[in-house]
Amino acid sequence: MSATATATLSATASPEAVIERLARAGRAAQRELARLPDATKAAALRAAAAALRAAEPEILAANAQDIAAGEANGLTGAMLDRLRLDPARLAGIADAVEQVAGLPDPVGQVIDATHRPNGLDLRRVRVPVGLIGIVYESRPNVTADAAALCLRSGNAVLLRGGSEAVHSNRAIHAALARGIAAAGAPAEAVQLVPTQDRAAVGAMLAAAGLIDMIVPRGGKSLVARVQADARVPVLAHLDGICHTYLHAAADPAMAKSIALNAKMRRTGICGAMETLLIDAAFPGAVEVVKALLDSGCELRGDARARALDPRVAAASVDDWDTEYLDAILSVAIVDGLDEALAHIAAHSSAHTDAIVTGDAAAAERFLNEVDSAIVMVNASTQFADGGEFGLGAEIGIATGRLHARGPVALEGLTTYKWQVRGTGQVRP
Amino acid sequence: MSATATATLSATASPEAVIERLARAGRAAQRELARLPDATKAAALRAAAAALRAAEPEILAANAQDIAAGEANGLTGAMLDRLRLDPARLAGIADAVEQVAGLPDPVGQVIDATHRPNGLDLRRVRVPVGLIGIVYESRPNVTADAAALCLRSGNAVLLRGGSEAVHSNRAIHAALARGIAAAGAPAEAVQLVPTQDRAAVGAMLAAAGLIDMIVPRGGKSLVARVQADARVPVLAHLDGICHTYLHAAADPAMAKSIALNAKMRRTGICGAMETLLIDAAFPGAVEVVKALLDSGCELRGDARARALDPRVAAASVDDWDTEYLDAILSVAIVDGLDEALAHIAAHSSAHTDAIVTGDAAAAERFLNEVDSAIVMVNASTQFADGGEFGLGAEIGIATGRLHARGPVALEGLTTYKWQVRGTGQVRP
Repeated sequence: MSATATATLSATASPEAVIERLARAGRAAQRELARLPDATKAAALRAAAAALRAAEPEILAANAQDIAAGEANGLTGAMLDRLRLDPARLAGIADAVEQVAGLPDPVGQVIDATHRPNGLDLRRVRVPVGLIGIVYESRPNVTADAAALCLRSGNAVLLRGGSEAVHSNRAIHAALARGIAAAGAPAEAVQLVPTQDRAAVGAMLAAAGLIDMIVPRGGKSLVARVQADARVPVLAHLDGICHTYLHAAADPAMAKSIALNAKMRRTGICGAMETLLIDAAFPGAVEVVKALLDSGCELRGDARARALDPRVAAASVDDWDTEYLDAILSVAIVDGLDEALAHIAAHSSAHTDAIVTGDAAAAERFLNEVDSAIVMVNASTQFADGGEFGLGAEIGIATGRLHARGPVALEGLTTYKWQVRGTGQVRP
Repeated sequence: MSATATATLSATASPEAVIERLARAGRAAQRELARLPDATKAAALRAAAAALRAAEPEILAANAQDIAAGEANGLTGAMLDRLRLDPARLAGIADAVEQVAGLPDPVGQVIDATHRPNGLDLRRVRVPVGLIGIVYESRPNVTADAAALCLRSGNAVLLRGGSEAVHSNRAIHAALARGIAAAGAPAEAVQLVPTQDRAAVGAMLAAAGLIDMIVPRGGKSLVARVQADARVPVLAHLDGICHTYLHAAADPAMAKSIALNAKMRRTGICGAMETLLIDAAFPGAVEVVKALLDSGCELRGDARARALDPRVAAASVDDWDTEYLDAILSVAIVDGLDEALAHIAAHSSAHTDAIVTGDAAAAERFLNEVDSAIVMVNASTQFADGGEFGLGAEIGIATGRLHARGPVALEGLTTYKWQVRGTGQVRP
């Protein structure tokens, strides 16, 4: 077949065929990656970081194209801000890749080992999941962050970014691939889906057996689509409807400080508090409500919460199930721990929920009975983050129940195999 | 509403409505179960075992009904054997429930703990998955086995057995529920789907958010349907195409003993060897092939395998991807470890694969590079079993990559939550 014929074929290939070809190449690269020593994988990430720094002119020029197109297409200021790169942001992206290179390799870790009476030696050993698909929106840093975490844990990755960031993503991906190849690792371990055809996302979601796991990174509509359509396992969270419960035995000053931080430090992150539950017996309620209002937060409360301060608006029934991602907070007064637990069981999105209390028994009941990925005592829900948890970085936060929960980092990108060493044993 | 009206409603409820009602009741029971002390869960299983023993007359009478119906409907001898209970088999079922009661409770185990520089104390603690759905065929023992494993690990379970075993399953379930309730645990933690309408299985598979995990137990067509249709995560294996590779440095006597055991001990289990790979440099090939043929195994080989013994038939291209579950074995001669690894990568179902060798470096390469749930050196693949692995029992063997791989027992029926204990920390 001539080169022209190949090019024509490829240009007319269906999204399914494109994804299948990329996935097979990615799986082959992953098998090669699995045989490389840890030092080579770390070196590949350091080389990728260096290549990102060296490619600053190309990457910023590509980003300028995306910004210009975004402005022409009427993207909002917030979207343009997520899309925009500058020398400091690009240096931050390269630094983050280098930091991931320095994290310990989870592959090969022995989870547990047993010696059977018949002499068989059994070990569960961490291995990469395989090929990870990342579906994301306008943040070009995801291209580098996700690639670094996948490669560090021995996985290949198939990246599908948003069309707004297409030039930035291509430039970042090209730099990463140059660095990886220069270190002697397979460049196809990190691939970017070349087509912006939306059907390519559908093909990724349907690629059971070819892609081992999908991680969506972006807004709620993206995550909802991925969760609804995927035949491949998905690691994600849809909502972060996080609660803080100020128990009767909460220290008033601590309660105020935690409530303010949980809501107002950054209102747009998934770990931000969205509902405040105040025990009717908590003595500092008026102070906490006043401090939140004074900090510029809109409060929507039930009848008893409204009685605390005339500025509290009336909550509608939907408020208890709303993730505002803004300086808005729903506030309910509850009569005791059981009522707080029942409210959380009914309305939490199983992301992060916290209690503030000086009562150890109440704290333990809350930790045990609230069925969320992260449960906290006397701390701000804004700590719900892989970096804050000491994981080095995170590919995302998962609120599903299987495989990995809460912040997902390198370990969540691995699975395990059983290694059995015998000396000729046969089963009786 | 009158009792008659309720009964009418219930009789005309859609399979989806029936499953939703059962799932909600199961989830409520699971929350209650989660608050019970370990001793109560263990006592509930011991009481369930006692209730099974006490109900022997009813259970055997119900089973006789199923056997009579099965004979009238022309079930095969093998199917009737799987269905049939007698006093010894029923005693074995009760004993198995009692054994699960004695296994350590995984719930509450601390997977790891870290102390952050800011003083936050982080622990990952095992918690139940939630509500497990079991879809199975004609073996009534699954009703008790699966219920015991789920309850021991703090999960509620929704059981959907085959219509051939409907009376047996109802009688076993009734005894279990009596025992569980007598011990003060919620009987609705173990529920049997009351309708044999096949649409109820579809409703279970679609019940994402209501059922947390589905475990199919049965033949390949059942597992294939569950894997194809489920929107709920599935833990299962479709095939057990297990390989044994006799390396050039294998001890001939050990190789013969392992090959015979891996194939012929029991040919119908998923850990039975289905393909034998013999290194062209292995000196004992003729002996191994002769021993397998003499033991009554049909061999289907490539050209070089056929040259070892005139009784070896010609393998077709399909033989390398066939799980016989019978006294039939495909045999290929390979030139070295790399060719063996390539054959396994192309044809293994990722269940269990083994090498026989005296060469430690070859063994390690095999253990590291074969990407199956279980990899073995110098042992029979028939050891692929939760009991043999020291897990006490198993709910099944999984060949998927996420959550749990290989034999799945109590730990595989748990997930974890992050518990964060602070002293007033807020995020800077």
